[in-house]
Amino acid sequence: MTRNAGDLTALSQGHNRAEDLEDLALGDDYALNPAYIDMVVEAADRGDAVRLRELIDALRPADVADLMGFLSAEYRYELLAFIAPEALAEILSELDYHIREDVLEKVAPAALVRALEELDSDDAADLVEDLEDDKRDEVLAAMSEADRTSIQTSLAYGEESAGRLMQREVMAAPQFWTVGQTIDHIRRSADDLPDLFFDIYVVDPSYAPLGAVPVSVLLKSNRDTPLELIMEPVTEITVEMDQEEVAYIFDKYHLISAPVTDPGGRLVGQITVDDIVGVIQEESQEDLLALAGVTETGRDATVLDVTKSRFWWLLINLGTAVLASSVISAFSGAISQLVALAVLMPIVASMGGNAGTQTLTVAVRALATRELSSVNMLRTIWREIAVGLLNGGAFALCVGAVVTFWFHDPLLGLVIGMAMVINLLAASLAGILVPLTLERLGYDPAVSSTVFVTTVTDVVGFFSFLGLAVLILL
Amino acid sequence: MTRNAGDLTALSQGHNRAEDLEDLALGDDYALNPAYIDMVVEAADRGDAVRLRELIDALRPADVADLMGFLSAEYRYELLAFIAPEALAEILSELDYHIREDVLEKVAPAALVRALEELDSDDAADLVEDLEDDKRDEVLAAMSEADRTSIQTSLAYGEESAGRLMQREVMAAPQFWTVGQTIDHIRRSADDLPDLFFDIYVVDPSYAPLGAVPVSVLLKSNRDTPLELIMEPVTEITVEMDQEEVAYIFDKYHLISAPVTDPGGRLVGQITVDDIVGVIQEESQEDLLALAGVTETGRDATVLDVTKSRFWWLLINLGTAVLASSVISAFSGAISQLVALAVLMPIVASMGGNAGTQTLTVAVRALATRELSSVNMLRTIWREIAVGLLNGGAFALCVGAVVTFWFHDPLLGLVIGMAMVINLLAASLAGILVPLTLERLGYDPAVSSTVFVTTVTDVVGFFSFLGLAVLILL
Repeated sequence: MTRNAGDLTALSQGHNRAEDLEDLALGDDYALNPAYIDMVVEAADRGDAVRLRELIDALRPADVADLMGFLSAEYRYELLAFIAPEALAEILSELDYHIREDVLEKVAPAALVRALEELDSDDAADLVEDLEDDKRDEVLAAMSEADRTSIQTSLAYGEESAGRLMQREVMAAPQFWTVGQTIDHIRRSADDLPDLFFDIYVVDPSYAPLGAVPVSVLLKSNRDTPLELIMEPVTEITVEMDQEEVAYIFDKYHLISAPVTDPGGRLVGQITVDDIVGVIQEESQEDLLALAGVTETGRDATVLDVTKSRFWWLLINLGTAVLASSVISAFSGAISQLVALAVLMPIVASMGGNAGTQTLTVAVRALATRELSSVNMLRTIWREIAVGLLNGGAFALCVGAVVTFWFHDPLLGLVIGMAMVINLLAASLAGILVPLTLERLGYDPAVSSTVFVTTVTDVVGFFSFLGLAVLILL
Repeated sequence: MTRNAGDLTALSQGHNRAEDLEDLALGDDYALNPAYIDMVVEAADRGDAVRLRELIDALRPADVADLMGFLSAEYRYELLAFIAPEALAEILSELDYHIREDVLEKVAPAALVRALEELDSDDAADLVEDLEDDKRDEVLAAMSEADRTSIQTSLAYGEESAGRLMQREVMAAPQFWTVGQTIDHIRRSADDLPDLFFDIYVVDPSYAPLGAVPVSVLLKSNRDTPLELIMEPVTEITVEMDQEEVAYIFDKYHLISAPVTDPGGRLVGQITVDDIVGVIQEESQEDLLALAGVTETGRDATVLDVTKSRFWWLLINLGTAVLASSVISAFSGAISQLVALAVLMPIVASMGGNAGTQTLTVAVRALATRELSSVNMLRTIWREIAVGLLNGGAFALCVGAVVTFWFHDPLLGLVIGMAMVINLLAASLAGILVPLTLERLGYDPAVSSTVFVTTVTDVVGFFSFLGLAVLILL
């Protein structure tokens, strides 16, 4: 939708060199071709400025940003010189967060001011936020009063709030206008309107949104139709709303855009679905990474960054592993009498860990999509208990049989079978109760549930198996 | 954007009873209030048809669908009678997959035919696909020839293809038209156009898309401007493209809609971003669940469904746990000489499992977002090796110190430290190489990686710790 000017020329001139390059640049799946990245690196190594500019001009902003993500810092800085000023704004917006901070340091303040003026207020504020303090002051001082105020207002909202996500540019019309008046107004004031918009917000005299007219509906209606007659109800977003909630609302009601209101109910901006696609990707990625105990570091991260991003989780896990070991330690005597116990005990713990993770993952997803609430909480807990007992029973039979044959000891088979039922039940309970409790207490269940659940399944697994062995076998 | 007619009346009449009910229905976060669901259940128990209809009429289709998701099957069937025929189509489209199949069975074929006629071709095809064979034939036979053909064409495309995702209704215009001609045409043929559209596709005489004019750009331009001058290049989607690829393209280029072409390059439909939001949710959910080894069953699933959805993964895990046990078994002699080995060995395996899962999760995400490709593969592998060695070293020191104090045995501390380095390195290597290899072989790395990685970390963990103990301590 938003290619740069170079692409547009390429298209209207038909099949020319730039278009050939674009075909080369992207695979059938629209991902950057590794061969193309090599071509860029080679041209940079040769110092071939003409070729480099040609290669970059053939790409859309999102692809240049992707290219930069694959390059090392030195090549990235070199590329910067060849980017057309008008393309810079969009490329900066598209860069991975980690890379952007780094690239922004290398862009001259004057170029940055020009780039920021090209962007919608939400994207501009994002960029300014990533600047270092000194540079931010310098850049803001060089901007027009209006642009500066708009960016500062945006930055005053919380980091993941609707206020930050919205763009301040909207197309609003009073309720008494007709379709014809609205179309004429849009044509006259084209320059002051957002680049793209999908809904016209109908507002009352106090600028409170009353409804919305999708642009296609406006086009389909007769010129003398009052907006009031064709407007549809709107789902209002308030500036303080969390972006995760905004994404939920967009997804639920299939919104393309929504008006954002301040606490007084006045229309102050709009959020469009293309911003939401990014939020959804981000939020689901956060859950996935949080469950595995890693934080996002980006493809450009150093070894030290990555090591640190994993260290703390492993340290916590070490604590719980030592706790589990101390349980085993309490049964040293039993193990030295019957080494088979040491051989078999990891099976019980491992099955519990996996069953717990299964339950936990489903619960975290259901909480995120609001499919698990107080309405079906009890029902879901009972179902998990039943599932734990059923799978526990099934695997008690499996593993009981295997162990009976392996060690020629039916009693040992009985012990591990009983421990399996107990631990899969514990896994089910912990898998559902831990995330529910964390959610109730106001914590993100994705972030900390895993460690609690695996601690439960390790401790219960070792304790039940070894404890039953002492009672029954020794 | 798409509330039902009841809402519209409520809005234009100001703050009336229906609006009060809507306020009651949804929390501040737009999720259904549990209290509201209780009210529905109570009204159903009392057989209070008037109240039930009132409660349902206050909700938008997406909320009715959500409500049905929280109710048990009996209540759900009861509700069905109170749903206005014109709302039924959208509610059916919004229902969870599992619940929809069940609800569709209860809807009379005649009502279904009417509902299908209200929907865009993609949504209609989705519904028809979920029907049982007998009912599908009956419903298709009762539809108009045009609708039937359109649904059958849609169903002929692969299940997760762009062809299935697209709607056949598009607004196309020849390149020589002006803005004014286009607006007049849209107004004249309003009934034949899609309900909502965001781009006008400019086509050549063979109906190949040449570019797109966003509706807001059309509105801003003068009536005598030729479309050719204001059109922007389009990103073409082909009918066979996988929906995951389509989502990647929409996310990358921030598309609102895109034209879909057949193998001959003719425009045959369009995909809009609201369909893509659903796909993105679906795909990231699939990755998350696959990594944990569960399949989606829905909130309505029976105990048996859920048990089965988890059984196979646990069975595979049992196999790998038994494999790990057989490694331990080979060291029975060592363990009976030194029970401390049994106490400590789970620490090594557990740390490896966690480190492997961290690496694996990051790699699976990077592959899905195309941030890991052959360009940075080697670099990423080296980085993971370095991270494994660094964290391995750090935890070797931690755990070595703990064990030395705990068991007053520096050599035992040395053994577990060495095993820790080896296993965290193995975890890093397996965590990156397993998903890369599966991807190369054409498998989904999210689905099967976890089991391979944890097998490696279990086997290497036990073998290295017990093996080193035999070499150094005994």
